Amino acid sequence: MSRTRIGITLGDPGGIGSEVVAKSLRDLSRLPDAEFVIFGDPIVFRSEAAFQRLNLDRFALSFRDNRVVRDDRVVRDPGSPRLAGRRGRPCRSGQPGCRGIPDKDNGAASFRYFEDAVAAARAKEIGAIVTAPISKKSWELAGIPWRGHTEYLASLYPGAIMTFWSESLTVALFSHHLPLREALAGITKAKLAKFFRTLKDGLEAVSEGPHEYLVAGLNPHAGEDGLLGREELDEIAPAVYEARESGIPVSGPFPPDVVFRSALGRPGKVVIALYHDQGLIPFKLAAFETGVNATLGMPFLRTSPDHGTAFDIVGKNLADPRSMIAALRMACRS
Amino acid sequence: MSRTRIGITLGDPGGIGSEVVAKSLRDLSRLPDAEFVIFGDPIVFRSEAAFQRLNLDRFALSFRDNRVVRDDRVVRDPGSPRLAGRRGRPCRSGQPGCRGIPDKDNGAASFRYFEDAVAAARAKEIGAIVTAPISKKSWELAGIPWRGHTEYLASLYPGAIMTFWSESLTVALFSHHLPLREALAGITKAKLAKFFRTLKDGLEAVSEGPHEYLVAGLNPHAGEDGLLGREELDEIAPAVYEARESGIPVSGPFPPDVVFRSALGRPGKVVIALYHDQGLIPFKLAAFETGVNATLGMPFLRTSPDHGTAFDIVGKNLADPRSMIAALRMACRS
Repeated sequence: MSRTRIGITLGDPGGIGSEVVAKSLRDLSRLPDAEFVIFGDPIVFRSEAAFQRLNLDRFALSFRDNRVVRDDRVVRDPGSPRLAGRRGRPCRSGQPGCRGIPDKDNGAASFRYFEDAVAAARAKEIGAIVTAPISKKSWELAGIPWRGHTEYLASLYPGAIMTFWSESLTVALFSHHLPLREALAGITKAKLAKFFRTLKDGLEAVSEGPHEYLVAGLNPHAGEDGLLGREELDEIAPAVYEARESGIPVSGPFPPDVVFRSALGRPGKVVIALYHDQGLIPFKLAAFETGVNATLGMPFLRTSPDHGTAFDIVGKNLADPRSMIAALRMACRS
Repeated sequence: MSRTRIGITLGDPGGIGSEVVAKSLRDLSRLPDAEFVIFGDPIVFRSEAAFQRLNLDRFALSFRDNRVVRDDRVVRDPGSPRLAGRRGRPCRSGQPGCRGIPDKDNGAASFRYFEDAVAAARAKEIGAIVTAPISKKSWELAGIPWRGHTEYLASLYPGAIMTFWSESLTVALFSHHLPLREALAGITKAKLAKFFRTLKDGLEAVSEGPHEYLVAGLNPHAGEDGLLGREELDEIAPAVYEARESGIPVSGPFPPDVVFRSALGRPGKVVIALYHDQGLIPFKLAAFETGVNATLGMPFLRTSPDHGTAFDIVGKNLADPRSMIAALRMACRS
């Protein structure tokens, strides 16, 4: 391809995906030259773009035909009297074009958008994917066997790594959607060694260095020399030592309640969290509305905003596009 | 007692305890009327007070005689050339009055201060204890069988609860210095029920309400209806339900990566963390230099600043007293 082509999936048609994408494109004038391929319903998106006074002719933009709303249907909003006359009326799941609640058809549609975008990325038709939020519940209603974007990607690329980026903090998750007991059981020297290597390769592909990886401990005070747990001595420290010897800029394990604080506001410091909440509790405190989720360790980059479908504000023009803008910028840099 | 008597333990004589206490007393003019009893070395403290130009005659102040530095000794500082001529010279552990490093004599002394203060509180000679930081390593060198203040208190009051207070976030720990695996194993409905009751009684004794307690889940997304772990369904939610029925203002379990963010900046919301780092990672991110540690569930209140001995800046007049001031204020309110 001659220029960067970025795929954008619109996510759940009943959520705020189209709204944040349309608002973001208004604000992308300073982006590197890129072409956008929208994976989603053209009617839903063009309607939102018109409402946002976004001139789509300014963009190198194409659509993949995955329509959920047919021309003869109206996109419905779920309960805002203010908007009832303009963009729909309260709806129940199962009604065509239903918005604001989990819905089987919307689940099936948003999965198709994503599946199609991933196929395009694997075929190198696009270089990166930016995903607007899906509803896990909609996917479940539609019988999709994956819990979300990440699980689908992990089924194709078992070594994929979830990372979270903001101006103040960057976090990489060693494990994500696992019960905490299982996450603990998976902390082994061999798995950590592989993770450090994949992370290094993935980071170098998407972000200018130099980076330094700080590994959080598992136990209080990083185990305090074995007094408060042995995982640091038996698994984590040996893995860190060997990785350093092989040239990976990793250090630790550090006391978990100190390492995030000490990395705060220091670009280039990437904290490796050993389980989902160890990384996401501090990230969501520090990043507010501008966080980006990036999946590394695959042949293409996938980024997404750090928020959900926000069903409660659908159709109210209240959605904040900053996180989506940051996700688009990161994808364009890759 | 006719007026509030607050005990202050000076902590490790080789740390910044005396400095932050002396600086704090300069700043306590707006405190409720209180009398202070210093548990520590009068020579060390009077020397620091003189250096800080603090007029001790302004206070209702008494000392318990627990001297570590005898009149013929000089308090030594560990390596600041600027201070070498004024307050000592570099020292090695074992030298009398050694500062800036863990030291056996200092460990024994700081334990005596604390043990004596606790005895005074149990005898109702003082109503609360404010503890300057000790060095766990100094205690270990001195053969003290407890790891720190909290463990000593927990040996006397097994139901004691560690809480952390700041302007932006308040956190109560269901468990503290345990390996994470053990902390998980201890999450049972019965233990949670007892904890909620003790917390309610403890909070009502030290802080004006109304309070609301938000329980963090254990697993990612609070288990997501059992998909990501069963503890929420089997232990936590039933305990919360019963506690609510009995009039305790508790709710949850909430997704851990959301609950701290949602409680941020909302006074009266107390987040219950199920293990040490779940609470202290967000607290240390949010509270910066003004956090206070308060131990509840005992016949007296104990507060302390949220920092350590800071051996690296001992004798340099660089210690920030804000956390100690907040700890003193909280004790005076009790």
